[in-house]
Amino acid sequence: MAAVSTVLAVCFFGGVNSQTPVQVKSLVDNLLSNYDKRIRPMEDQTLPVTLDVSFSLISLIGVDEVNEKLETSGYLTIRWIDSLLTWDPDSNNGISKIFLPQNDIWKPDIVLGNGIRNFEEFGGSFYNVEVQNVGGVDWKPFQVFETQCSIDTTYFPYDREVCEIVFVVWSYTVSEVEIFKSANGINLNEYTESGVWEITRTDVKVSKESLESKVTFSIHIKRKPFYYLFNIIIPILFLGMLTILVFALPVDAGEKMSYAMTVFLSFAVFLTIINTLLPVSSDTTPVLSRYLLMQMTMSILVLFITALQIRLHHRDTSVPISKPFRFMVRLMHYFHCRKSRKISPAKHKDSEERDNFDSMGETSQEEENRPEWKDVTSAIDFLAFWSFFLLYLSLTVYLFATIIRGS
Amino acid sequence: MAAVSTVLAVCFFGGVNSQTPVQVKSLVDNLLSNYDKRIRPMEDQTLPVTLDVSFSLISLIGVDEVNEKLETSGYLTIRWIDSLLTWDPDSNNGISKIFLPQNDIWKPDIVLGNGIRNFEEFGGSFYNVEVQNVGGVDWKPFQVFETQCSIDTTYFPYDREVCEIVFVVWSYTVSEVEIFKSANGINLNEYTESGVWEITRTDVKVSKESLESKVTFSIHIKRKPFYYLFNIIIPILFLGMLTILVFALPVDAGEKMSYAMTVFLSFAVFLTIINTLLPVSSDTTPVLSRYLLMQMTMSILVLFITALQIRLHHRDTSVPISKPFRFMVRLMHYFHCRKSRKISPAKHKDSEERDNFDSMGETSQEEENRPEWKDVTSAIDFLAFWSFFLLYLSLTVYLFATIIRGS
Amino acid sequence: MAAVSTVLAVCFFGGVNSQTPVQVKSLVDNLLSNYDKRIRPMEDQTLPVTLDVSFSLISLIGVDEVNEKLETSGYLTIRWIDSLLTWDPDSNNGISKIFLPQNDIWKPDIVLGNGIRNFEEFGGSFYNVEVQNVGGVDWKPFQVFETQCSIDTTYFPYDREVCEIVFVVWSYTVSEVEIFKSANGINLNEYTESGVWEITRTDVKVSKESLESKVTFSIHIKRKPFYYLFNIIIPILFLGMLTILVFALPVDAGEKMSYAMTVFLSFAVFLTIINTLLPVSSDTTPVLSRYLLMQMTMSILVLFITALQIRLHHRDTSVPISKPFRFMVRLMHYFHCRKSRKISPAKHKDSEERDNFDSMGETSQEEENRPEWKDVTSAIDFLAFWSFFLLYLSLTVYLFATIIRGS
Amino acid sequence: MAAVSTVLAVCFFGGVNSQTPVQVKSLVDNLLSNYDKRIRPMEDQTLPVTLDVSFSLISLIGVDEVNEKLETSGYLTIRWIDSLLTWDPDSNNGISKIFLPQNDIWKPDIVLGNGIRNFEEFGGSFYNVEVQNVGGVDWKPFQVFETQCSIDTTYFPYDREVCEIVFVVWSYTVSEVEIFKSANGINLNEYTESGVWEITRTDVKVSKESLESKVTFSIHIKRKPFYYLFNIIIPILFLGMLTILVFALPVDAGEKMSYAMTVFLSFAVFLTIINTLLPVSSDTTPVLSRYLLMQMTMSILVLFITALQIRLHHRDTSVPISKPFRFMVRLMHYFHCRKSRKISPAKHKDSEERDNFDSMGETSQEEENRPEWKDVTSAIDFLAFWSFFLLYLSLTVYLFATIIRGS
Amino acid sequence: MAAVSTVLAVCFFGGVNSQTPVQVKSLVDNLLSNYDKRIRPMEDQTLPVTLDVSFSLISLIGVDEVNEKLETSGYLTIRWIDSLLTWDPDSNNGISKIFLPQNDIWKPDIVLGNGIRNFEEFGGSFYNVEVQNVGGVDWKPFQVFETQCSIDTTYFPYDREVCEIVFVVWSYTVSEVEIFKSANGINLNEYTESGVWEITRTDVKVSKESLESKVTFSIHIKRKPFYYLFNIIIPILFLGMLTILVFALPVDAGEKMSYAMTVFLSFAVFLTIINTLLPVSSDTTPVLSRYLLMQMTMSILVLFITALQIRLHHRDTSVPISKPFRFMVRLMHYFHCRKSRKISPAKHKDSEERDNFDSMGETSQEEENRPEWKDVTSAIDFLAFWSFFLLYLSLTVYLFATIIRGS
Repeated sequence: MAAVSTVLAVCFFGGVNSQTPVQVKSLVDNLLSNYDKRIRPMEDQTLPVTLDVSFSLISLIGVDEVNEKLETSGYLTIRWIDSLLTWDPDSNNGISKIFLPQNDIWKPDIVLGNGIRNFEEFGGSFYNVEVQNVGGVDWKPFQVFETQCSIDTTYFPYDREVCEIVFVVWSYTVSEVEIFKSANGINLNEYTESGVWEITRTDVKVSKESLESKVTFSIHIKRKPFYYLFNIIIPILFLGMLTILVFALPVDAGEKMSYAMTVFLSFAVFLTIINTLLPVSSDTTPVLSRYLLMQMTMSILVLFITALQIRLHHRDTSVPISKPFRFMVRLMHYFHCRKSRKISPAKHKDSEERDNFDSMGETSQEEENRPEWKDVTSAIDFLAFWSFFLLYLSLTVYLFATIIRGS
Repeated sequence: MAAVSTVLAVCFFGGVNSQTPVQVKSLVDNLLSNYDKRIRPMEDQTLPVTLDVSFSLISLIGVDEVNEKLETSGYLTIRWIDSLLTWDPDSNNGISKIFLPQNDIWKPDIVLGNGIRNFEEFGGSFYNVEVQNVGGVDWKPFQVFETQCSIDTTYFPYDREVCEIVFVVWSYTVSEVEIFKSANGINLNEYTESGVWEITRTDVKVSKESLESKVTFSIHIKRKPFYYLFNIIIPILFLGMLTILVFALPVDAGEKMSYAMTVFLSFAVFLTIINTLLPVSSDTTPVLSRYLLMQMTMSILVLFITALQIRLHHRDTSVPISKPFRFMVRLMHYFHCRKSRKISPAKHKDSEERDNFDSMGETSQEEENRPEWKDVTSAIDFLAFWSFFLLYLSLTVYLFATIIRGS
Repeated sequence: MAAVSTVLAVCFFGGVNSQTPVQVKSLVDNLLSNYDKRIRPMEDQTLPVTLDVSFSLISLIGVDEVNEKLETSGYLTIRWIDSLLTWDPDSNNGISKIFLPQNDIWKPDIVLGNGIRNFEEFGGSFYNVEVQNVGGVDWKPFQVFETQCSIDTTYFPYDREVCEIVFVVWSYTVSEVEIFKSANGINLNEYTESGVWEITRTDVKVSKESLESKVTFSIHIKRKPFYYLFNIIIPILFLGMLTILVFALPVDAGEKMSYAMTVFLSFAVFLTIINTLLPVSSDTTPVLSRYLLMQMTMSILVLFITALQIRLHHRDTSVPISKPFRFMVRLMHYFHCRKSRKISPAKHKDSEERDNFDSMGETSQEEENRPEWKDVTSAIDFLAFWSFFLLYLSLTVYLFATIIRGS
Repeated sequence: MAAVSTVLAVCFFGGVNSQTPVQVKSLVDNLLSNYDKRIRPMEDQTLPVTLDVSFSLISLIGVDEVNEKLETSGYLTIRWIDSLLTWDPDSNNGISKIFLPQNDIWKPDIVLGNGIRNFEEFGGSFYNVEVQNVGGVDWKPFQVFETQCSIDTTYFPYDREVCEIVFVVWSYTVSEVEIFKSANGINLNEYTESGVWEITRTDVKVSKESLESKVTFSIHIKRKPFYYLFNIIIPILFLGMLTILVFALPVDAGEKMSYAMTVFLSFAVFLTIINTLLPVSSDTTPVLSRYLLMQMTMSILVLFITALQIRLHHRDTSVPISKPFRFMVRLMHYFHCRKSRKISPAKHKDSEERDNFDSMGETSQEEENRPEWKDVTSAIDFLAFWSFFLLYLSLTVYLFATIIRGS
Repeated sequence: MAAVSTVLAVCFFGGVNSQTPVQVKSLVDNLLSNYDKRIRPMEDQTLPVTLDVSFSLISLIGVDEVNEKLETSGYLTIRWIDSLLTWDPDSNNGISKIFLPQNDIWKPDIVLGNGIRNFEEFGGSFYNVEVQNVGGVDWKPFQVFETQCSIDTTYFPYDREVCEIVFVVWSYTVSEVEIFKSANGINLNEYTESGVWEITRTDVKVSKESLESKVTFSIHIKRKPFYYLFNIIIPILFLGMLTILVFALPVDAGEKMSYAMTVFLSFAVFLTIINTLLPVSSDTTPVLSRYLLMQMTMSILVLFITALQIRLHHRDTSVPISKPFRFMVRLMHYFHCRKSRKISPAKHKDSEERDNFDSMGETSQEEENRPEWKDVTSAIDFLAFWSFFLLYLSLTVYLFATIIRGS
């Protein structure tokens, strides 16, 4: 009867090219009257349906480093030929395309392959698909994709990640539904830039080897490091300097130990903060974490040396000074002199004055041979300061070298 | 048969204008008997359906700065003419409007264009739409909208944001469904004021260039800064003052270093708190964060100077004082005298008394030429206090100037 | 045909009043055979359906101060007359009521008007409604309601809030569906008391002015303050006392500054804790937050005074003491004497003894005229202690007065 | 026609007792052909359907003390007689039971009565129910139940809670659907023990008084205290000891005040931790919280005494010592002597030696009459240590006594 | 009529082996025309349907230690013979398999048996199942499984867990649906390695004893300890060393007590961090927690000893030293000598020099007999340092021994 009404409609409106709802309805009724959406719409059922899948990224909602998850929003444009939905526009009042609800026709059961939720049907019951008169079907499901993405934070915050978004035709094999790619990457025309990540490259790959119809879109992203430099690296570098400052504090001030302990605890706090930012993984360790642990170890060492220093400082003057300590004192004096000679021949007068001061008592030479415990702690301060300063410098250079080379 | 029953109904109740459920039912059955909700309801299918979309904002549930997300609740009023749902009220017992479930008739597949969830159909199966006898359809879907909104916190807490709520007709192009705007902004009649944000302006824009039917509502909002002034800015200003106070503490008190370290750590804690409030973005840095980092740097500097000071303070009296330090001491004395001369000629007697005290020992002139290490630390205290105070003042003025000018 | 079978059923079972499933089924089939749930069930369609809405609160699940949200569970009892669902029990085997699934009959599209989620249909597909033979329909949808509720925490924790739960008939206007209230408040018979909030009063209001059919239930609640007194107010009062204790510590102890700083930081920590409990709003500021900020300011002041004190304390004895400081010392002595005179004439002997001690050296009068810097710091301690104690007392009295008067 | 095909089926397969799908299908079609799932399946509709409800607990997923919520998983076994689903197995190829989807037959609208979500239908569309030939229906919906449960944490961590899980037949009254209980408690055969809670008893109660059909399952649970003893109680007891240790520190050490402050802050931190574990309620206060507040108050007291002590310690020796202080010193000496006499007659020689030491100067008697301020602070240390120790002991005994007696 | 069209289709396309959609549609219509998906598809209904269930794990999304939950994603491959879906390919144009939506045919109501959500139907309405012409049905529902898994963290971070994923056929008993296993474990071909857990073994078990059809897949996993070693164990070991360092600090330094307190608090902080990582359970206690508590106890002890030490240190020199203290001093000297003798005969000269120093005053022997209080504190430092070092060592060895042996 639907066919009859179509004929009638054609008769009434004849050559006129205006399309009425009745005419469209009769065309739709006609097309779907014998349609079974369970049957693949190929005239030859031994051939696969060919899907042209392209992906338009709209925004990179977030990268969750801890749970190794990428959240993106975008839409797929899936095109195929439905050989059962063809008509002659000329004999249908010039109607060349119609819109049908997605659930009224056959569509591939394509799903997100590497998601972390149950499979969900793409699109929705209220989505329309566009059908052209030659059978071309255009389906554009918009979706928020939560995909697994292994995050390698070794070179954090200069890390580069590659995240894949995989689409699979779940029940059909490659001999029923075939995917081919029409574009060489992800369509980024509608993409709005993220404040944290820069997209460097995108890729599409249609896998050939397996029986599964699968298309893999990969997004190569690079972290914009400025925020982390500003809020994490700089405070850590500051803390590192503060560690060394312990040796600038004289033992007499009586704050050396508590100061060193405070710096140590600050490192522990920072390690905790860093750990909440990065994934729990025993396979890779961020260079930054390693740097922090070395700094912590350095800080522990500083605490030990400081405790020793304080102990020596409060040692009774009657206790004789052993050889290694004497050597340290001499080393300090040697460096001090070299420095003063190098930098300040102009300070000649000063040093003369000093000599005068010194010569009031015994000769300075003898003085140096019989150092007190106070001089020992001063020597330790001096030597430790410069050794740790060098250590700090080399560790920091190592950090940046590794990170920048690695990324 | 439905048509017949309508006729009968008309006969029975004749001129009487009372409407019975039977009459309404027959009208509805009549209208929908040949209706296909997949077909656009335009008599001439080559013309687009024209949607009149307006937006009534009910409340601004929240602005999530960290995830750059705006959550609003409100309802759309979408109006169009369904040319298939027209009837003559006179021959239908004066029925001039009917209510139909939204899923019984054609409606555009309009969706939230910049959301962060999968598209969802507006309204719900239990929603009714009002249909007037001339075909006017009135659809008022209430919705909670979660939209992406890039937050620029540069001038936090005096920042102004512009958030867009975009509605798109997804499958139809502009030649099938066209949007026009009847109002010049968002309807705020039912809006209840937020405690954090003030709406300064609203806009509507219908995009013309693309093939997509799209309407963009934009909300210009301004943060009410009082809460953040009270709870963040004031504590930070307080902390800044405390940094300078380090130089008011004499070295002898033995608390200088631990005090300075505590202030430094407090800055670090505040930086962490601020960071949890603001988005992670390497593109913009809030002036407030920059201010805090400068304060932290200042604090680090203070720690270094303090350590040096303590070192000098505990230096043996026998070590001669180098020229720059002597200069500092003289500078301090100069300032001190100028100050006392300026402010207190009335304190003449006091200073005489002081002279007496001083003259008990050597002449004060000579004293100043031969300062002790204690005087050097005092001089550093004095000079550093005022330099850092000026620095603090100018940084703070810069902060407020930038924020207020920028916003 | 359904009607016929009813007649038959009546014939067979005649006067017998036992009801079989077959009889009930035939009645139901009969009633619904020509029923269209899209049509309002009023014989005269120009009149509105009258809803009797009452609300039974079951529990107050939570008040979210930060997001200004109220979560309650309860059920509505909605009653109306469906003129199409009437029958004569006598000719229907005495059946006087039937149960029908809610989706089989017309029901108003009533929704939660001030929620923060998309509208959801009340009840569910498995709910039954009771229909009496005169057409009375009884619908009791149980629901968990999340409504917006502006929380005014000015007098926290003695605040009283008024939260509204609004129900609106969304698509119908007042001329199609009308709400009236049968009760004067919310039914609290099944309410189980909350541990935090006490319901003081409930109200119902049916709005008359607008075209919308709207019923507003308001709940007046009062916070039970004990928990917050115990866990927040008392610790804050304790902290306030500790601020003053700074001046009880002598400068010589060498812990004054770090102690004062610790107290200051504790205030900052408490401010943070309080802020996580209360909404972010620039419109109202809790008295408690203001109290805390004043205490913090006081604490800053204490730090400044302490730093000054320590500076003075370590000032060289050669520096003369200026007049204001001398005045302070005299003031202290004056108060001390007054106190001792007042309280202890019995301590006469002691003070004599003291005189003896004093007279060993110079006359005490002279002593007081030539105070040392130590005496100045003591005087500052003494005066600051009592001033701050008075300040603390008055601030605290102000806090409680404001809160209790305001609530 | 379905009936005819059944007859045919019976004819074809005659006495053979093998059941084919066709036979089962014809039986099912036959049973449901005239079935209306809206009608209660009682031959006499004036009688109620009798439900036998039993509950098998599978696991106690969690008890949320803060939101006073119990989460359990388990399944109900609901049995009733559907008088319309009966057949003779002998004339149906020996088929004695069939499986039907739950939504194909009548079932009571039983829901969770004290949940905190909207009512949800039990089971699901894919659930099958077993129907025996005598009409017995067996429905076993598995569900995760989130129920409200008022938690009384007074005796935390030795508290015992009683949580109820209430099931209500929502629309039917007791005259339409009646619940009776076949078991005396909850079926715990498949229950897997929780690591935190021990189930001590379970109960079932069918309420008789109201019109509602309601069955209440109650679970009596007892907290396993070991975890909390280990992680909360022991650290708190440790902290309490540390409070008293303040008085073991001599004033000269210069760390007394900062030590006492640290202990006080630790209590505050612990109070915060405890509060995140326990519900916010002004009606009951955990004994543990009260204990902690007392400890905090004790800690404040300690701070005040310490500040006083330090003040006294640094008082000039010229200031005379008032009577109460003298009394304290005497008290200390008295206790010291008593102790030494009691414990150590063997230390006779030592004390003689001491006497010798003492007698080198003036007589010890005189010495004690003229104590210095140092002795006063020692005395305060001594007396405060033992008083606070006793206070601590009694508070702790009170804590445990109350908790253990109460639970 | 469907049958007729099939016949026609066969006629038209005769021997040609090309399959048209019309042919497939007629086959499908034919198969399903008399199909009832409520009936088990066994020719002999007294026999059970046999399910072949295998499980392919795709990823181990997470192990939630605190809530004792395992989250995995993977898919089941469920195979059975549907005796009603068989056809002869030869008489059906060579069609040997068809794809049908899963809801169009009978399928077992298999569910996740030990989940923590309501049962959900596997697959989805858009899933297709493959049906071979001999009736073989292949259903591959992909699912994210949240299962309960009791986590035994005794040997954390060297723990090994066994988690089970149980699938149950809910309404059918073993006599209607039977499960057998075709594989010996879980299919790990598509599994992507986790960074935290290593799968050591997988198992399948089909339970025989009960009436329930149940298959249990178990995953044996082993934690990769490196991350926790790095971020938790090492900092804890560091902290342990810092505890002992207290005794390296001389009492004179005046930082001993605050340092010890800081270390104690750090332990408390770490205990809190560890507790957020591990489940709340009173049944098992991680060795690591026990180790931490022991360290804390050690730390408390250190605090007590330190307080005592400081007390003794500030004791008046006139107070005689009791015997145990004297013994300690002698013990220290003994060890010191033994050490110096053992290690440094080369330091002979030094010790001679020392003797000279000593002999300037009284004889060293006598000196040792009359030690000062300072010597006592030194002795305590020395003895406590080495005892606690030994204790620390043995505790740490015990920790590692237990953990490694246990795992």
